[in-house]
Amino acid sequence: MSLRYALLALLTAEPLTGYDAVKRFGGSVGYVWHAPDSQIYPELRRMEGEGLIEGEQVRWGPNSTKTRYSITGEGVRALREWLEAPIPYAPLRDVSRMRAAYFEWAGPESARENLRRHIDYYTEQVGRWKDMRQAILSAEHPSIAARLEKYPAEEHERIIAYKAFAYEGLIARGEAEIEWGRRGLDLIDELEGPSQARGEPGS
Amino acid sequence: MSLRYALLALLTAEPLTGYDAVKRFGGSVGYVWHAPDSQIYPELRRMEGEGLIEGEQVRWGPNSTKTRYSITGEGVRALREWLEAPIPYAPLRDVSRMRAAYFEWAGPESARENLRRHIDYYTEQVGRWKDMRQAILSAEHPSIAARLEKYPAEEHERIIAYKAFAYEGLIARGEAEIEWGRRGLDLIDELEGPSQARGEPGS
Repeated sequence: MSLRYALLALLTAEPLTGYDAVKRFGGSVGYVWHAPDSQIYPELRRMEGEGLIEGEQVRWGPNSTKTRYSITGEGVRALREWLEAPIPYAPLRDVSRMRAAYFEWAGPESARENLRRHIDYYTEQVGRWKDMRQAILSAEHPSIAARLEKYPAEEHERIIAYKAFAYEGLIARGEAEIEWGRRGLDLIDELEGPSQARGEPGS
Repeated sequence: MSLRYALLALLTAEPLTGYDAVKRFGGSVGYVWHAPDSQIYPELRRMEGEGLIEGEQVRWGPNSTKTRYSITGEGVRALREWLEAPIPYAPLRDVSRMRAAYFEWAGPESARENLRRHIDYYTEQVGRWKDMRQAILSAEHPSIAARLEKYPAEEHERIIAYKAFAYEGLIARGEAEIEWGRRGLDLIDELEGPSQARGEPGS
């Protein structure tokens, strides 16, 4: 159900067609709330049916039109209400931690491989999150640029600061994950001796 | 699908009835992989059908029996295979971060309340995870005690160290969340001025 609030948040920056929303989703709010394209179109239609957004037909190529959606007053109210309600924290399902707890059942090389992947995954994610944070702070990100254009100058600091703050949380979490993975590799060395796979001829 | 591996991991310590598994799940592996009780019983029956575990009837009270499950060789193989396969990292759905990114749409007091809840939630979780880590290190946790009894002394260091390491990852993550929440409260003060709710008469 958070998908609709992600879409409402996007639409506070500018009106979007379903196609635009999918593109924006992939490069902006989709970093914090993933949704497959196939969910976005039907959700927009449901939201239109509930009066949270309204569609107008716009030209699309020479012979065709598309529906472009704008947020309504009702949609803004729904977004605010959601932002103000207590967050339900989902119970934990942490597959990396679950595996680590039973590493004695994996060979040491598998355990190392698990942690190397963990480090690689979060290293890549942290890189992406840092790029996003930078694009927000410099106002170069297209969603941010559109949003700043729409709202008065005295709102700009806030708009930028909260989005950068959200990415700072992801970056901090990712860095904690990388650090945990490194400590795990050291722990495996302590418990099992250094990796046999390192420095093998031809490896 | 990770539920079955969590159950297999539990059963490497000792045979368990469905009832025991539910209890153990709640106080041990359930901290890293949550599953509702209603999923555990049918999953055990499916696993028995697939030969990963086997059931025997044991006495339960004066006039009744229960099925107690043990892991089979096939089950141990399935657990090892799962531990050695690459982890599929799920795309992010981070409602706390999504909300923070749009805090300009919440009033400052709602934004603060969101972050205070975030801090409280993770403070409670970190406390619980630290208790678990301590119960693992001291071998007082019943799952760990049963496990150590089953395996030779030279395995004990490993068994304990990996489980403590898993909880250290949760603790580090939780502490990063608390720190992020605190930085957010400071940011709101900077952007919006200090909280009006503080120190109000009668509050």
